[in-house]
Amino acid sequence: MKGNILYAQSGGVTPVINATAYGLIEQYFKDKKHFGKFYAGKNGILGVLNEELIDISAEKRSELELLKQTPGGAFGSCRLKLNSYIESKREFERIYEVFKAHNIKYFFYNGGGDSQDTTNKISKFFQSKKHPIICIGLPKTIDNDLPITYCCPGYGSVAKYIATSTLEASLDVKSMSQTSTKVFILEVMGRHAGWLAASAGIIKEKASDPPHIILFPEVEFNQQSFLKKVKDIIKKYGYCVIVASEGIKSKNKFISDSGLKDSFGHAQLGGVAPVLSNMITSKLNIKVHWAVSDYLQRAARHIGSKVDVEQAYVLGKTGIAYAKKRESDIMLIIKKIKSASKLKWRVSHTPLSRVANVESMLPKNYIKTNGYEISKSCFNYISELAKGEDYPSYVNGVPRYARLQCKVIKKKLKSFNL
Amino acid sequence: MKGNILYAQSGGVTPVINATAYGLIEQYFKDKKHFGKFYAGKNGILGVLNEELIDISAEKRSELELLKQTPGGAFGSCRLKLNSYIESKREFERIYEVFKAHNIKYFFYNGGGDSQDTTNKISKFFQSKKHPIICIGLPKTIDNDLPITYCCPGYGSVAKYIATSTLEASLDVKSMSQTSTKVFILEVMGRHAGWLAASAGIIKEKASDPPHIILFPEVEFNQQSFLKKVKDIIKKYGYCVIVASEGIKSKNKFISDSGLKDSFGHAQLGGVAPVLSNMITSKLNIKVHWAVSDYLQRAARHIGSKVDVEQAYVLGKTGIAYAKKRESDIMLIIKKIKSASKLKWRVSHTPLSRVANVESMLPKNYIKTNGYEISKSCFNYISELAKGEDYPSYVNGVPRYARLQCKVIKKKLKSFNL
Repeated sequence: MKGNILYAQSGGVTPVINATAYGLIEQYFKDKKHFGKFYAGKNGILGVLNEELIDISAEKRSELELLKQTPGGAFGSCRLKLNSYIESKREFERIYEVFKAHNIKYFFYNGGGDSQDTTNKISKFFQSKKHPIICIGLPKTIDNDLPITYCCPGYGSVAKYIATSTLEASLDVKSMSQTSTKVFILEVMGRHAGWLAASAGIIKEKASDPPHIILFPEVEFNQQSFLKKVKDIIKKYGYCVIVASEGIKSKNKFISDSGLKDSFGHAQLGGVAPVLSNMITSKLNIKVHWAVSDYLQRAARHIGSKVDVEQAYVLGKTGIAYAKKRESDIMLIIKKIKSASKLKWRVSHTPLSRVANVESMLPKNYIKTNGYEISKSCFNYISELAKGEDYPSYVNGVPRYARLQCKVIKKKLKSFNL
Repeated sequence: MKGNILYAQSGGVTPVINATAYGLIEQYFKDKKHFGKFYAGKNGILGVLNEELIDISAEKRSELELLKQTPGGAFGSCRLKLNSYIESKREFERIYEVFKAHNIKYFFYNGGGDSQDTTNKISKFFQSKKHPIICIGLPKTIDNDLPITYCCPGYGSVAKYIATSTLEASLDVKSMSQTSTKVFILEVMGRHAGWLAASAGIIKEKASDPPHIILFPEVEFNQQSFLKKVKDIIKKYGYCVIVASEGIKSKNKFISDSGLKDSFGHAQLGGVAPVLSNMITSKLNIKVHWAVSDYLQRAARHIGSKVDVEQAYVLGKTGIAYAKKRESDIMLIIKKIKSASKLKWRVSHTPLSRVANVESMLPKNYIKTNGYEISKSCFNYISELAKGEDYPSYVNGVPRYARLQCKVIKKKLKSFNL
């Protein structure tokens, strides 16, 4: 009896995680004779624990095809971290039972660093049971902070969104700066790594161009130096555009810490822009506008990067090829082909143990010594990932995104108390 | 000696105000034999007062062509209101002097309701001087609150942006809602009229679809009813998407009043989303994400509506035709052609006195009786305006927007103290 596939999405979603799902599904249909059923976990690994498995053969093929252009996590995602084998023994045993009950022989987990820790643990757990399954991690994170891979699917599209939004808002504030608002602040995501804040830098060609100030989480925030810089820039150019990472810190404290934590134990941030705005208004008496893009950036598939969509999709397709070759215990990665002057890439792989829980920060030489701008090498790296447009189709003025039924199959086991 | 043209942009800019500018400029080049020079006021009417006139013939033609796809106000805009003839006598006399000195016989003012009040006053002032000039208002406002015209250039594109952003963020929060964030709030502009908040409604086809709650400035905010609705929706659908106008009020007080006022005397708003977020978190103990789109929405040319761009552009072109016919003291408007089932339109005109300082609110029958959703007629009206895509060209991953020199011509008069 041929083994079934289980695919699940994990952690914060991206504009292109569904393109990876579609790559897998499309290739699965082509290689169907090698496999049994294709299931997706409802809300990620939670769907495995709850034995809530979506049979994708019940979905309309035309809707599945739309996954390539649909943001968010079409099967649902979750933030649920498995702890050590001792602490999470019940959960590991449950996963083992559910996989056995539904003849799951292939497990694809689509997520970032925390999630690949889960993939790694599940893979090792099945090995310890002498019941190995094919366990393959598929990379995904807008934060671009997975190690080893050249870049992370999701990042290029969000970079394109942030750069474009910064450019557009800059033209707006510049138009108004003579008699009205002189400062515009855009707050972007990126808890520890400044990749997203950095992406705004690809619209800057000369000193007078925006963004004039990028606030990276890697650089200690200094109020005095910041305010002086804002004042100087307004004096020189008449207006000032600031892009701030949600994760900027002063003396090891987040500038805006809401006090909440997510289930991975990370502080829940948001609201740096209004804090900076109040700072500028009260100290410099200058009118400020600010925007917090939050989920808008993370879901902005309407301005997807062609390179990014293609990478996400090909990673999915290649996942099936690896499964056929029975390669396991790996995460797929993007590898740059060295000789090429412009970005050429292919899919490769790395052991799961090398990526689990490792965060890849913005390299030191990607930030200029003034601490407020990106370097030329950073500019080149990000531009390549934001290149090309991949527009969704539209109906009645809005994108036509996939509408799946997500019906779960009949359960075989007793229910599980989380 | 042929008369020169003076074009100026006024008030908050839009994704398509430059498309109107380009319509004028392109048609001016075609009809050049009828006119002298084409000047643009630097920073709107301020450029007239300061005798800062940009000669568009000094700009590269290829950059001018890019205006059709460039957001913001390419020649600069301003928020400067002329008061009565008595209070602003110096300003009116100055405008008269500058127009005479530079042989301005045609004045195009591109703005919203407040700005058309200025166009009207200038027109009447020149009449009173027995020195009539051709005075034509060109409509522009993302708020869609100008009277008589079927719609306002700028609105359709921002509606498309808000609807698409709401749809995308909804897919994101829906994916995450099982274990993490259950509520997403998007704050949009619209001080008094709910047109922008309403635009999110065009993604909703059935009750379970987002947005679940739209907060209109036309509807009194009631905390108790709002929180009950949020709770009910989460219970029913697992997540809740809210779109809130910056202008929502409770007991005639803005929910989030920063205390600042702009030069038109309007309260400067912003920050409704965090207020609502805190309300939900503290009263219902539910995790919320929020975004404030601010200038991002007003400048989002990358997702321009085809209908909107076309209307803005044709209004500009038609402006020159009206000037040739020596029609004056009017604002151009969009007129719907009645018989058509889908939107067909043409340009017409109305006396300036009829539009100055009149705000057109969302009609009562455009809001459902529950106060939280749009009606079918509203859905149809907005969908038509958001239809079609008009993408800018891109270079290196970001839109290629016009870069004008905006050099001002030699002054002939003494400087003027504002």
